Amino acid sequence: MEFEKILNNVIKKNENKILLLVMDGLGGLPHPETGLTELETAKKPNLDALAKSGMCGLSIPVLYGITPGSGPAHLSLFGYDPIEHQIGRGVLEVLGIGMEMEKNDLAIRGNFATIDANHIVTDRRAGRISTEENRVLVNKIQEKIKSIRNVQIIIQTVKEHRLAILLRGENLSPDVTENDPQKEGLAIKRITALNDQAKFTAEVLNEFIARVEQILADVDTRAKTILLRGFSGIPEIEPFQQRYLLKPACIASYPMYKGLAKLVGMDVIRGLESIDDEIKALNDLYNEYDFFYLHYKKTDSSGEDGNFEKKVAAIEEFDEKIAKIKHLKFEVVCLTGDHSTPSVLKGHSWHPVPLAIVSKNAISDDVDTFTERACAKGMLGTIPAINVMYILLANALKFDKFGA
Amino acid sequence: MEFEKILNNVIKKNENKILLLVMDGLGGLPHPETGLTELETAKKPNLDALAKSGMCGLSIPVLYGITPGSGPAHLSLFGYDPIEHQIGRGVLEVLGIGMEMEKNDLAIRGNFATIDANHIVTDRRAGRISTEENRVLVNKIQEKIKSIRNVQIIIQTVKEHRLAILLRGENLSPDVTENDPQKEGLAIKRITALNDQAKFTAEVLNEFIARVEQILADVDTRAKTILLRGFSGIPEIEPFQQRYLLKPACIASYPMYKGLAKLVGMDVIRGLESIDDEIKALNDLYNEYDFFYLHYKKTDSSGEDGNFEKKVAAIEEFDEKIAKIKHLKFEVVCLTGDHSTPSVLKGHSWHPVPLAIVSKNAISDDVDTFTERACAKGMLGTIPAINVMYILLANALKFDKFGA
Repeated sequence: MEFEKILNNVIKKNENKILLLVMDGLGGLPHPETGLTELETAKKPNLDALAKSGMCGLSIPVLYGITPGSGPAHLSLFGYDPIEHQIGRGVLEVLGIGMEMEKNDLAIRGNFATIDANHIVTDRRAGRISTEENRVLVNKIQEKIKSIRNVQIIIQTVKEHRLAILLRGENLSPDVTENDPQKEGLAIKRITALNDQAKFTAEVLNEFIARVEQILADVDTRAKTILLRGFSGIPEIEPFQQRYLLKPACIASYPMYKGLAKLVGMDVIRGLESIDDEIKALNDLYNEYDFFYLHYKKTDSSGEDGNFEKKVAAIEEFDEKIAKIKHLKFEVVCLTGDHSTPSVLKGHSWHPVPLAIVSKNAISDDVDTFTERACAKGMLGTIPAINVMYILLANALKFDKFGA
Repeated sequence: MEFEKILNNVIKKNENKILLLVMDGLGGLPHPETGLTELETAKKPNLDALAKSGMCGLSIPVLYGITPGSGPAHLSLFGYDPIEHQIGRGVLEVLGIGMEMEKNDLAIRGNFATIDANHIVTDRRAGRISTEENRVLVNKIQEKIKSIRNVQIIIQTVKEHRLAILLRGENLSPDVTENDPQKEGLAIKRITALNDQAKFTAEVLNEFIARVEQILADVDTRAKTILLRGFSGIPEIEPFQQRYLLKPACIASYPMYKGLAKLVGMDVIRGLESIDDEIKALNDLYNEYDFFYLHYKKTDSSGEDGNFEKKVAAIEEFDEKIAKIKHLKFEVVCLTGDHSTPSVLKGHSWHPVPLAIVSKNAISDDVDTFTERACAKGMLGTIPAINVMYILLANALKFDKFGA
């Protein structure tokens, strides 16, 4: 990435504070009946006031046309190239349920599955057992298997037949094959190493699977083995403190976003359960940090549900909540989303995301409402999201001159 | 290219159809008397309706300020990096006259030229002999030379003194020098190999030139030899079917565009002579393909002629013709050009090209007329043309999420 070639030369520390407000899945599409998007429908005087006092635009999370998951979308917003730094599926799974990863840990996604006496997989999802049954099984397994060959094994229920596994120890490698035959009616595979360094990991995993099968053999459940995939280690990402000389706080209530923030070195504030908790935390911690990432989830989850009205209500709720931080002084406030989640598409999308940057060092444009169409006419134009972090740092006067 | 790093991971097949309407040389410049461009002058209710219902912008064919030929301009529109995939001059010459290239063919541009008894080039264009005379000579040569050392030689007249040559056989290489001394009064050069692999090709070409000179020695013509340049093989380009999982049809009446479409793996519909043929073909073939590239030539040729009124008339003609495909349902329609050809410049230019994308998954902006100045204010902004294909695929819901 071009920025990384000069960032070290220009970044400097100062006292100025930056607030990054991320409304997850912010961007939308017009309602077929009204022709208005969720943002165009919502009453949101405080968000509009930010747009009016700031400089607006749209941001492209990854590339034109590409729909990002939360991982790549957040990395972009944090100023890291999401194509260069791809986060493994296993890592996202463990972060998503709030497991903490350490350096050298190996993260794995797992499925309970049904096999017959000949090790033929008869149901790759073990009949989608309930989350409760999953919990009982995971507890039973975790009680009997704490470690294998000095590698600590940490297992947690995700949902229904899904579980997450962390291996913690020396010499672990993600370069192993899956044991999932991908199709029912085929035998479960042995995990094999893709290179010499991964042989130990393959042995540990095969022993783990064998012991899980022994334990499950005596239990009345359709779950008779586990299929493993998404083997991945923690990605190497230069932390915020070192890269931007910031002291960053993550103010989020969902595990995934706390996990992503931790990957880039943020202090993750614990015990927050709601947007009210988050607003209170921002007030309480204002003096202790110089960068705040505040995450709001409901705009995404209501969009994923395809519930237009609920997304409008979520926007209005966030609008009301941020009125309570108006008195806090930030050199730069950025209001945006990580990606779009239009209710009409019931999922993440590729559409550029509204963006407003408020700073006394920015020129305010004539955009006076925070919507997709209004922001498209802002002075920032439509820009790759990876630039946002650099614009925030610039407006907070945290860059020295490049060249003489 | 960044896209190529993730395209394989996200592309998926579905039933949705995409229509790419390319008005060659679309963009223009204001007429000195009226201050209005060709698009601003033309009456074009159907094009304006597409702009009104879609999302508009301008596209930059290659790079800011760069005037592209048809080759790079089309590669960009098809989503391939035109700087990475440079198409040789020889290849463009043979495609331009409708010759079909096979893998491993070597394409060459040739000139008839005049030499004296000492092999001094006295006229590099053989007095610009007529196209008819060229044809007579080419037939005579082709009759006597079918192959050399097992390499098939295929020769065709281009225009005046120009001809195109295809070598078809094993072990051919473009890495040979030209025989053109570049200046009159100098001796014609021998073709030499730039590396060992090219020695055979150089020998074949020198023998070919010697035999052509023998044949022409006995004919009453100023053409006494041929100068060869633009040696090039077919470029390696991942075909559309594999890259985008599309079944694409090229609906064009000019050889160059059919040739370019064939390079990227499109099915080239044969026997089309006019825009009426093209519109009929689109109607007839609607059910058989999921991607249609429809090319309209007259906007470019009238611009090249410097005929402002004729270009206005061409725009109006295309506007009238597309009314006949209104009833066809496409998930995405894209209306644009490959590059600009302003009448006042009498040639291709670097100016960004008007672009409108119509899709129910796009937000329509407030652009209601399809002109350079109106599109510049559209929501798409001014974007590199290489992104267009990816935006079309996204709007046709042909991308899975990138990352989790």
